Amino acid sequence: MAIAERWLRERFGSEIVDHRIWALCGDGCLMEGISSEATSLAGHLGLDRLTILYDDNGITIDGKTSLSFSEDVPKRFDAMGWHTQVIDGHDRAAVRKALEAAKAETSRPSIICARTVIAHGAPNLAGTNKAHGAPLGDAEVRATKERLGLDPDVTFAVPVDVVSYVRRGNPARAEARVAWEKRLAESPQRARFERFHANPNTSEVSWPTFETGSKIATRKAGEKVIQALSQRIENLIGGSADLAESNGSYMHGGGDVARGAWDKRNLHFGIREHAMASISNGLSLHGGVVPYCATFLTFHDYMRPAVRLAAIMHRPIVYVYTHDSVWLGEDGPTHQPIEHLMAMRAMPNLWVVRPADANETVAAWKLALARRDGPTALCLTRQNLPVIANTGPGLERGAYVLADEPEIHVVLIATGSEVALALQAKDVLGQEGIRARVVSMPCTALFDRQDAAYRSSVLPRGVPRVSIEAGTTFGWERWVDGGISIGIDRFGASAPGAVVADKLGLNVPNVVAKTRELLGAR
Amino acid sequence: MAIAERWLRERFGSEIVDHRIWALCGDGCLMEGISSEATSLAGHLGLDRLTILYDDNGITIDGKTSLSFSEDVPKRFDAMGWHTQVIDGHDRAAVRKALEAAKAETSRPSIICARTVIAHGAPNLAGTNKAHGAPLGDAEVRATKERLGLDPDVTFAVPVDVVSYVRRGNPARAEARVAWEKRLAESPQRARFERFHANPNTSEVSWPTFETGSKIATRKAGEKVIQALSQRIENLIGGSADLAESNGSYMHGGGDVARGAWDKRNLHFGIREHAMASISNGLSLHGGVVPYCATFLTFHDYMRPAVRLAAIMHRPIVYVYTHDSVWLGEDGPTHQPIEHLMAMRAMPNLWVVRPADANETVAAWKLALARRDGPTALCLTRQNLPVIANTGPGLERGAYVLADEPEIHVVLIATGSEVALALQAKDVLGQEGIRARVVSMPCTALFDRQDAAYRSSVLPRGVPRVSIEAGTTFGWERWVDGGISIGIDRFGASAPGAVVADKLGLNVPNVVAKTRELLGAR
Repeated sequence: MAIAERWLRERFGSEIVDHRIWALCGDGCLMEGISSEATSLAGHLGLDRLTILYDDNGITIDGKTSLSFSEDVPKRFDAMGWHTQVIDGHDRAAVRKALEAAKAETSRPSIICARTVIAHGAPNLAGTNKAHGAPLGDAEVRATKERLGLDPDVTFAVPVDVVSYVRRGNPARAEARVAWEKRLAESPQRARFERFHANPNTSEVSWPTFETGSKIATRKAGEKVIQALSQRIENLIGGSADLAESNGSYMHGGGDVARGAWDKRNLHFGIREHAMASISNGLSLHGGVVPYCATFLTFHDYMRPAVRLAAIMHRPIVYVYTHDSVWLGEDGPTHQPIEHLMAMRAMPNLWVVRPADANETVAAWKLALARRDGPTALCLTRQNLPVIANTGPGLERGAYVLADEPEIHVVLIATGSEVALALQAKDVLGQEGIRARVVSMPCTALFDRQDAAYRSSVLPRGVPRVSIEAGTTFGWERWVDGGISIGIDRFGASAPGAVVADKLGLNVPNVVAKTRELLGAR
Repeated sequence: MAIAERWLRERFGSEIVDHRIWALCGDGCLMEGISSEATSLAGHLGLDRLTILYDDNGITIDGKTSLSFSEDVPKRFDAMGWHTQVIDGHDRAAVRKALEAAKAETSRPSIICARTVIAHGAPNLAGTNKAHGAPLGDAEVRATKERLGLDPDVTFAVPVDVVSYVRRGNPARAEARVAWEKRLAESPQRARFERFHANPNTSEVSWPTFETGSKIATRKAGEKVIQALSQRIENLIGGSADLAESNGSYMHGGGDVARGAWDKRNLHFGIREHAMASISNGLSLHGGVVPYCATFLTFHDYMRPAVRLAAIMHRPIVYVYTHDSVWLGEDGPTHQPIEHLMAMRAMPNLWVVRPADANETVAAWKLALARRDGPTALCLTRQNLPVIANTGPGLERGAYVLADEPEIHVVLIATGSEVALALQAKDVLGQEGIRARVVSMPCTALFDRQDAAYRSSVLPRGVPRVSIEAGTTFGWERWVDGGISIGIDRFGASAPGAVVADKLGLNVPNVVAKTRELLGAR
């Protein structure tokens, strides 16, 4: 959020964008690795409008933090380039002063380490982990109220003087809001500001097209799309976890966002996938920007908790996941996705799109940017793929017939790089008199949402089906309906991509043999 | 690994256990959040035998680390209680001295920040990111060799003086090894040491049994198993990411491992799930201990990259995942697993076990400890479940018939907490004349490995099937074979668990209605 604020302020000036980001965090938050990833980048970028209030109560669910935590937190944040303060969190004057000091700091993010007592005021449970994960309970609430001089029989009550104190500030806040609205209304930048905050308008994007028969990796096709988008969608912002060139995620000519270079476009998240996805959530929740982020597909695992939050919160974020199969080659099993496509498809509200070729990649990006109620993962190849005739239209329905015969014996369902393989297999099967339909199924979630008529027009009942995907076969049962699935039900191997794929049966002879077997077996 | 070394040294003395752990890391490693999690805990525990050699070459794939990283690394490690040194990594005398200083440090882990030049000696690529992700190439290798005074036409050659230098140390190393073997052979602890390094022997464990009709959450049953195991398997070591009580993962009477308390049993990982799973990998790879770790099922996502490594590396680790469905209640969608079971089942070599009740939980633990070639995830309930007759035997085959009728109309397949629901539905269906078999399917991976005869004895062809599981229905197609799946294809909701489950259709009337519909539709 602090990145979005700073980035927009650079463009609109502090007349229009001028706010601060306050984060409340506890001991557990600072133990999670993502807190180090995110605060390290915040320090690097000098996000001075960001202030963390760290509720340092020394208690977690299991007991005292001293069971597992003995960091010098101010020093840790100092090492990351933060302004640090340590105060008594129950001393209201000290809190006020610390907030002012944080606001006065103009080059670094700020953390206020506020030493507190959990359940402060509760006579028996204060300072204990019993007050962490469970309610205080009726008796302790009563005792606490008595101790604080409140009427224990009155519940959900706010004292009159507290109400009036809070309301006293309202006119000034309303005035500030009206003044801001006036500044915006009169600003020459008004239309631009509203455009930034509307859905991305892709009507003037010069979408690339790719000639049938040429060869290009879908990550490279994606790179061309990003260039085209960056020309027309000026609030497109994004980047990679240190794989900008490999992912094809760099906006050429957009420059690198850095401390003092906020007019630039490309974010460098560092090797911090979890924070990258979380920052993308923050950018999207803040608004005014169109965020995307990129890494290898296998590293989806590192960012998965934040992707899940995007799905829960309906955030329209685009994940660019390249090197989407064993075809990535020598990096081997740790880097070769196997179960990732299915693990992502299992997540509610995440659209997983694996385009068959360059033109389907363009269609996938269109789909992702048109989506407003959740995130979309684009799974792209490292290796070159042939550009296939007629790909793209139909992608919005999740699956479509790409090549057909008048009367079919079998349907070959494929995604991504395996669509070209299915087309080759179709030709060989045809020579044997087996007439195959080839279906490209870039997005299973969208296909499942189509009506029964469309679904059965693509996958007619009674016609045997074969799925082909360079990943686990688990999950394909939903679409092959008693047919067979060709895939990889083991971890990968380190060798040139084509060798690995071939050894694991992702080749024409195996697809043909398995299909023949399926049909013979009936 | 350093935890394992220290923990075993406490038990066997430095006569037998006395080694050091060296870690090599780069800039990217220190950006990943897991590095902060793990090094924070290492500092807290004072793991003085652990030394990190940080190859600080200032280069990542995208370019200079200054694109995204400006931490004061020594200060960061100092804040976490580490001994720190900064040296010129190309100065061999300085490296030697730093290694000695690290060894001399007896209360803190140590990091040696070695400033280096990537591709040192390569005339054109040294110090650039071109030397990071790709080979130098023939020309640059030749130029480098020339510059270093080596013959560019000789490859895979080790100079004779290097060979002799290295071999000169061999007799001393061989001697040390023989001396250690002698000490071990003569040690009164020898048998114990060998037992620690053999497969866990559970033959004398007093496994708990649970009376049919009583009620207990499977996490509580798991807690009783852990108590029984801790009595007989003295090298069982484990803990939780700050949820010891909730997970039922605490070995009562085992005490808390801490700096200066290495005779204890329970690890407190802090709120660091990723490091917890990675440390479990380290414990298992080190050997001599039987590791388990615990958190809520939803936080599997945080540890997923390390779980995948365990599966790739065939590590026999037990993951205790409690609060395994929307039944966890008020914590709501962020904490309620939906897609997790299927996302885990998609991973090769990970066994996912969701026991139906307390006795099946005992069987699950037996299975997990007997497994030697990969990790096992035990998915346990927060809520109480009835103890069912005849559960347990059959679990090792992944699925088995729990309740049957002479001639069946339908098979209800359920896992975990939904097995009791299936049994209730069976009764109601029976009153309508619909005869149902109930199959408990705690581990799909094991069921898939059974022969066709067994599989069809449990799930006979031609009999309609209904699966019931409080998670996504995606994936169940593999086992329902054209039948239907009752589950939750959306994120959860915050309310008492029973309310959420009921609202989402996990109740007898819905199971009965859907089953009736399925049978009527045929």
